[in-house]
Amino acid sequence: MQQHDVIGIGNAIVDIIGRCDDAFLARHGRSKGSMQLVDAAAVGALYDAMGPGVEISGGSVANTMVGIASLGGRAAFIGKTAQDQFGQVFGHDIRAAGVTFTTPPAAAGSEPTGRSLILVTPDGQRTMNTFLGVSPQLSDHEIDAELIGSAGIVYLEGYLFDRPEAKAAFRTAARIAVSAGRQVALSLSDAFCVNRHRDEFLDFIRSTVHILIANEAEIIALYQVASFEAAAALAQADSKLAALTRSEQGSVILSAGSAPIILPAAPVPAVIDTTGAGDLYAAGLLHGISKGLGLMTAGRLGSLAAAVIIGQIGARPAVSLAQRARAEGLLP
Amino acid sequence: MQQHDVIGIGNAIVDIIGRCDDAFLARHGRSKGSMQLVDAAAVGALYDAMGPGVEISGGSVANTMVGIASLGGRAAFIGKTAQDQFGQVFGHDIRAAGVTFTTPPAAAGSEPTGRSLILVTPDGQRTMNTFLGVSPQLSDHEIDAELIGSAGIVYLEGYLFDRPEAKAAFRTAARIAVSAGRQVALSLSDAFCVNRHRDEFLDFIRSTVHILIANEAEIIALYQVASFEAAAALAQADSKLAALTRSEQGSVILSAGSAPIILPAAPVPAVIDTTGAGDLYAAGLLHGISKGLGLMTAGRLGSLAAAVIIGQIGARPAVSLAQRARAEGLLP
Repeated sequence: MQQHDVIGIGNAIVDIIGRCDDAFLARHGRSKGSMQLVDAAAVGALYDAMGPGVEISGGSVANTMVGIASLGGRAAFIGKTAQDQFGQVFGHDIRAAGVTFTTPPAAAGSEPTGRSLILVTPDGQRTMNTFLGVSPQLSDHEIDAELIGSAGIVYLEGYLFDRPEAKAAFRTAARIAVSAGRQVALSLSDAFCVNRHRDEFLDFIRSTVHILIANEAEIIALYQVASFEAAAALAQADSKLAALTRSEQGSVILSAGSAPIILPAAPVPAVIDTTGAGDLYAAGLLHGISKGLGLMTAGRLGSLAAAVIIGQIGARPAVSLAQRARAEGLLP
Repeated sequence: MQQHDVIGIGNAIVDIIGRCDDAFLARHGRSKGSMQLVDAAAVGALYDAMGPGVEISGGSVANTMVGIASLGGRAAFIGKTAQDQFGQVFGHDIRAAGVTFTTPPAAAGSEPTGRSLILVTPDGQRTMNTFLGVSPQLSDHEIDAELIGSAGIVYLEGYLFDRPEAKAAFRTAARIAVSAGRQVALSLSDAFCVNRHRDEFLDFIRSTVHILIANEAEIIALYQVASFEAAAALAQADSKLAALTRSEQGSVILSAGSAPIILPAAPVPAVIDTTGAGDLYAAGLLHGISKGLGLMTAGRLGSLAAAVIIGQIGARPAVSLAQRARAEGLLP
């Protein structure tokens, strides 16, 4: 019996969210909208320079799992924290959101819990500067086969490819999922991340992935083509199912031998902070698929969840997504 | 020469803000709207029970100093943090807000940085559960006489009376301020706090305080009378200047021999979270007084700052209060 609808494996991160202007990004050599990995010294220097922050638990796939729980799904997460205050915050928040989270924190004296300095510009765009800390020290033996076998879909964070230990854990998880007859979903995470691991991602998508989730910049980076359309055609050929998001232009869901499903973005009264838009789209999509609601409804759940999250600060929904989805007739 | 307009001395606290319903408060025996001191075990148990949180730097008088900086004033803060992640967050945020903060953190291995679990009910009321941690270990010799002499007003947090070490530091600060010819302002902090220290507060108000700031519940608790009017009359007799806040009923500023200044509350589009309303009222009032703007304008600055803060999550203003005040014609 499945105890979970979806299990996610990713980086355990606490977000430190502050506002800045475009000049601040330029001064610090940051590319707006991207995620950059930074070391302990760089994250310290940037923190010293930035304004006051708000701390909210984050992590891309962790956000997706919380979104699924908020939609009423049964979600679990595997990720590594340290025995420090940010680790306590991360563990508390994800469990309090109703997500199963049993990965033990690293031994005392480890690197600290990962954090991301997220700079939000007045247009609502977020630029992430992530110090992974202990997060990639997720080891092979922490990929709990029983937990993975307990879920219909295993969702993997592309960011994990950035560190060898985490990548090994990622591959182990995929192998367990496939042999248990589960679906494997993958987020490409970030265009720079795709550039770092293009060939490995392509192999993995062709061989193993059932559900590929990417935004426009990521899918173009993957295929190194000039247009979204060209990238989408290649993604359709390579994957069983690909959901490609395009910010305010909505999303496209492609599957082998079917006409594309083209979905508009859900309306947003005011864009406050785009942090987590992709993560929450993935939550709606995967929840819809796991519940067998059909791809059109799954995509609309994704659009709705993304719209909710960009109307607030941070990537963890402050309202019940299930209530919002029921109000829109997307959930019974 | 004065380098600072106002210096505050108080608890250094990181707020963990989450939403709950009235039944949750009842189940955990919490009195809505109050501040309760809890020990490490109790704060842990309550944290386990509460929903996901958002961490935002807090501390009553620290919030007031940030509000003064946001209004364009020169503010400083003295308070004790630990060498942990919450301590880093507190120190970063208050400095990034433009407040002078030079108190060194406690030695490694101390109690942790103080935190307050703030439960916000659907009506926007906040109920605080504070674990002071290392905060009261502010010692006498950390009350920097030069720093205190550098400010026109020294603002003291009533909560400091809750621990003997902090109370000693509080008294030292008042003595230094008085002998430097500075004004001493006092926040009564909380009605339960007043009940714990009534006689000492009364002595201190009569002997030393120039500006007393209290809300309706606190001033009634101080004088143990049946009505606000009776308490206000006693406060006027006991203090040089008393500013008494009454939530949506606005505030009253009383000074010896003058007619009361009665101010309405500034309009609030929607009450999101009342955390920090009193702290930010104090910011506007003290900023106005320190800049010699007259009591009427000072009170209106207080009402405006309070209105801004209850329209958002957390007690640190996310917008420039100076801009808002200029738009209202309250600052040049």
